[in-house]
Amino acid sequence: MIITRPDKYFLVAGYAEGPTLLNAFDNALMAAGVGNCNIVKMSSILPPNCTLIPPVKLPYGALVPVAYAEESWDEAGVILSAAVAVGIPEDPELPGVIMEHHMRADEQACLNNVIRKVEWAFEKRKFKLKEIKSISASGKIELIGSAFAGVVLWT
Amino acid sequence: MIITRPDKYFLVAGYAEGPTLLNAFDNALMAAGVGNCNIVKMSSILPPNCTLIPPVKLPYGALVPVAYAEESWDEAGVILSAAVAVGIPEDPELPGVIMEHHMRADEQACLNNVIRKVEWAFEKRKFKLKEIKSISASGKIELIGSAFAGVVLWT
Amino acid sequence: MIITRPDKYFLVAGYAEGPTLLNAFDNALMAAGVGNCNIVKMSSILPPNCTLIPPVKLPYGALVPVAYAEESWDEAGVILSAAVAVGIPEDPELPGVIMEHHMRADEQACLNNVIRKVEWAFEKRKFKLKEIKSISASGKIELIGSAFAGVVLWT
Repeated sequence: MIITRPDKYFLVAGYAEGPTLLNAFDNALMAAGVGNCNIVKMSSILPPNCTLIPPVKLPYGALVPVAYAEESWDEAGVILSAAVAVGIPEDPELPGVIMEHHMRADEQACLNNVIRKVEWAFEKRKFKLKEIKSISASGKIELIGSAFAGVVLWT
Repeated sequence: MIITRPDKYFLVAGYAEGPTLLNAFDNALMAAGVGNCNIVKMSSILPPNCTLIPPVKLPYGALVPVAYAEESWDEAGVILSAAVAVGIPEDPELPGVIMEHHMRADEQACLNNVIRKVEWAFEKRKFKLKEIKSISASGKIELIGSAFAGVVLWT
Repeated sequence: MIITRPDKYFLVAGYAEGPTLLNAFDNALMAAGVGNCNIVKMSSILPPNCTLIPPVKLPYGALVPVAYAEESWDEAGVILSAAVAVGIPEDPELPGVIMEHHMRADEQACLNNVIRKVEWAFEKRKFKLKEIKSISASGKIELIGSAFAGVVLWT
């Protein structure tokens, strides 16, 4: 199933370890609650009049458009972080802007970066910013880790 | 909104600077006229009987399949270029082929590369080439830049 | 045309050479039988009750979701391999899991890796594994090569 007219969205994030980088990413998707669906990466606009909802359990194998940040790495002791933020415009007829940031540094630094990106995107568009919703995940690598954060469009 | 049966296409390109690589890319998308929609990257075939149209203003947040080239970088003075080219077959029942090229070099070099790729793709397929449509963007980095060129499928 | 409710899938793989990395990849897609359609990369779940079919000739320019592995490189003598594997759960109401692996090493090593990834994904989900379907492609580079393997969702 693929959604054709997203009018809802929700934020998800998770950090996990795994025996390979891909398994760690798979596990991070599961930690975020989107591990059993098909994520299709998209650039990064929230359609107008899209409503924030709590995360829903997606149907198995659903094809869902997601704007996301990922950081996966395999050096013990390194901190990984991923964050997304959505800027909501004051005018509900305008689109929102989703930004991503991932880095080998702590979660707050990652959030600061992603929020600043949203502010810049609004300045550039000359849209008035009503509010920013953000989410992030972070972890200190034990063996092989993956941090994931995404905005899921849904219907 | 996602299109299910693309029968039109148009070419877009833009170069922009920004305070981060992602904001520069976002700004390049806006310079190209596709900054407020959701681009989904696809490999690179023009459906048969698809009609070239002038760029349209896409609905905010629309999910659009785009074959694109991007080059983003942050060294002042470097020239960035991105180009796409579409080979149109003589037989309208055959598909066209879209190729991408991006490089840290001037626009004409980038165009030469992408056009040669289309010619090779047609030679390999043994399709007769009617014509090639191409578009490119280029800029000399001041601080952080992004060049983008894409073929948008539309309906 | 984009499929909205995939209920079939098939496995494809191919290795090819080409005059550039992108042309080699294009040629590998053609060797795999999916060269004239639009592949959209997705993460990696097989919807429940999806049926394995022999590869079909896809309509020109169709937008098809594919979970795939690719390895393209340009050093003569190097062996490139790409593999995908699908874990099928005993319970048909549960989703399958698709894993990818690509490497500059021989085909059997690549298959071993991708199969192990599927096993790990099932262990993590606590799903009982009924069987694993896999496919791979490999070649020794003459000039510029590309190995591709994918799971195509179809309807």
